[in-house]
Amino acid sequence: MNILEEYRDKRAALNEKVINNSDKVIKRIYSLDTITYTEGALDEKTKEMIGLTTSLVLRCDDCVKYHLEKCVELGYSKMQIVEGMGVANVVGGTIVIPHLRRAMEYLDALFEEKENQE
Amino acid sequence: MNILEEYRDKRAALNEKVINNSDKVIKRIYSLDTITYTEGALDEKTKEMIGLTTSLVLRCDDCVKYHLEKCVELGYSKMQIVEGMGVANVVGGTIVIPHLRRAMEYLDALFEEKENQE
Amino acid sequence: MNILEEYRDKRAALNEKVINNSDKVIKRIYSLDTITYTEGALDEKTKEMIGLTTSLVLRCDDCVKYHLEKCVELGYSKMQIVEGMGVANVVGGTIVIPHLRRAMEYLDALFEEKENQE
Amino acid sequence: MNILEEYRDKRAALNEKVINNSDKVIKRIYSLDTITYTEGALDEKTKEMIGLTTSLVLRCDDCVKYHLEKCVELGYSKMQIVEGMGVANVVGGTIVIPHLRRAMEYLDALFEEKENQE
Amino acid sequence: MNILEEYRDKRAALNEKVINNSDKVIKRIYSLDTITYTEGALDEKTKEMIGLTTSLVLRCDDCVKYHLEKCVELGYSKMQIVEGMGVANVVGGTIVIPHLRRAMEYLDALFEEKENQE
Amino acid sequence: MNILEEYRDKRAALNEKVINNSDKVIKRIYSLDTITYTEGALDEKTKEMIGLTTSLVLRCDDCVKYHLEKCVELGYSKMQIVEGMGVANVVGGTIVIPHLRRAMEYLDALFEEKENQE
Repeated sequence: MNILEEYRDKRAALNEKVINNSDKVIKRIYSLDTITYTEGALDEKTKEMIGLTTSLVLRCDDCVKYHLEKCVELGYSKMQIVEGMGVANVVGGTIVIPHLRRAMEYLDALFEEKENQE
Repeated sequence: MNILEEYRDKRAALNEKVINNSDKVIKRIYSLDTITYTEGALDEKTKEMIGLTTSLVLRCDDCVKYHLEKCVELGYSKMQIVEGMGVANVVGGTIVIPHLRRAMEYLDALFEEKENQE
Repeated sequence: MNILEEYRDKRAALNEKVINNSDKVIKRIYSLDTITYTEGALDEKTKEMIGLTTSLVLRCDDCVKYHLEKCVELGYSKMQIVEGMGVANVVGGTIVIPHLRRAMEYLDALFEEKENQE
Repeated sequence: MNILEEYRDKRAALNEKVINNSDKVIKRIYSLDTITYTEGALDEKTKEMIGLTTSLVLRCDDCVKYHLEKCVELGYSKMQIVEGMGVANVVGGTIVIPHLRRAMEYLDALFEEKENQE
Repeated sequence: MNILEEYRDKRAALNEKVINNSDKVIKRIYSLDTITYTEGALDEKTKEMIGLTTSLVLRCDDCVKYHLEKCVELGYSKMQIVEGMGVANVVGGTIVIPHLRRAMEYLDALFEEKENQE
Repeated sequence: MNILEEYRDKRAALNEKVINNSDKVIKRIYSLDTITYTEGALDEKTKEMIGLTTSLVLRCDDCVKYHLEKCVELGYSKMQIVEGMGVANVVGGTIVIPHLRRAMEYLDALFEEKENQE
């Protein structure tokens, strides 16, 4: 199983556990998370870039993977995503590098998948 | 091996490494950690809930697992633990969600184990 | 002006600015924040203690002050609040001490105010 | 003196102290910081929005103020900036609210200044 | 009153409040904090440099000031302290810069005081 | 494959991905990272100890492993490294313990490898 499937399957399986167990507060967090990235004065693309880069400085690998998927879906080029992560890396310091490494591996896999689909 | 055993075995094995190598400062941290969760003006249950939720906002999966074990042992219901983690999730933001997911998986396994023992 | 009034006035004035400017997402965060601390499987007191201690390990002075107010209002004794903060300090390390110092100053002022009101 | 001048004067005075004392590493950080926000595959505006929102989730008031100045300069509307900060607030949780409050105060002052200049 | 006295007086006054209110756990944290920086396999100077730089990446201004005082007392040159902070700044990213600025202001004041005493 | 090889191989493979994809900003971060740990007013050993301990309080396992390798290479004794990590653990709190555990496992493996080479 490749790293894309591994992440997606694990995420889906565990999200089901959260939903089965969640109280009203956790349900609201999930629904808030959804409306947060919809178009408003800022477009969806910019909001996803914010999601990606804030996740990267907070060093959350799973959050980074999720927003990488979205950023690729919404049409960002690889270099645009790399540049966004570069800004986050300057802000967050070299402590971010191991997370950038894993993000790059995932990003490469996403673009490979995309090319195979076309 | 299930996720409970995997965590417990790894933790025990590595704690032994720490103890074998530790200086007086690390020894003191370990002993301080033990007395911290004993009953005082606050009862043990409330202190473990603090241990769990502060670990969750600081996004330390291993610490969360440890306090989940203790919270179940001390008699919290599943919904009480979920609600405590819900508060932590609001405080800490959606960046906490991947850690909540893993916590829910561990919590389910703990309650399953508990039911099998009864 | 004492430190209680200073905090309360500043907080109220700036919350008004947030509300005047906020989009639907920020409005939802504010409403979620309110329902988070209401009684459920856990009582209000435990939830406020979680609010206080997670704020302390995340080292947010203003959040700590807010939850100190609530904890005093809900009837915690000073020693119970101190013990809760002690647990948070062990979890979060000596980096939390300057925030603990400011919390203690605020806590003393709150109990002084409470005694004057009785 | 208003909050804009207070921040700008303090920042300029202290930056001078850093520059007078800095070694080659700190000099490089400063020069890297400058090239980070220049146009590439992503435009300057998107990069400043990343600077603002990553600073907000990392809860650095001074960094937020700096990027607010830049975002206003580059032509973002107030609602766009508010929405960007809303996303950051969801990611970072309610612990970000006190920083959002101070950011809103600064943002209002910046737009007031801008209107007076026009 | 200069920035050195302001910090020292405030710190002393609030430490008294902590000590008056503290439970056994907080007392232990304070005593652990003291023994942590005593000579062992590593000398006191190296330990204080660790105290300074870990405080800087965790962005705790008061902790930084405290360790700056100790580092100057123990005989570090200004350039050595600046270089140590430079390493911390690379690790922690540009988000550390505002804290570096305040640290530089305090460091300058400490060396000025030292020269006046000689 | 042992834990040393596993880390080194993964790190090398992913660093190649970063280098293949990186923009000028990420390239600069990598080159800055290299010059940061060279001798200046502080010697290399002290700078690596700063790298290790700041990485530990920021709880980055991969960064810790990297600096453990360097600290062993530069001639620190095991007890010196343990003491440095002890200071970091006091500063960062018990939340650091799981990272200390993994660091101790890696440190033991490094000294075992070193003894086998002699």
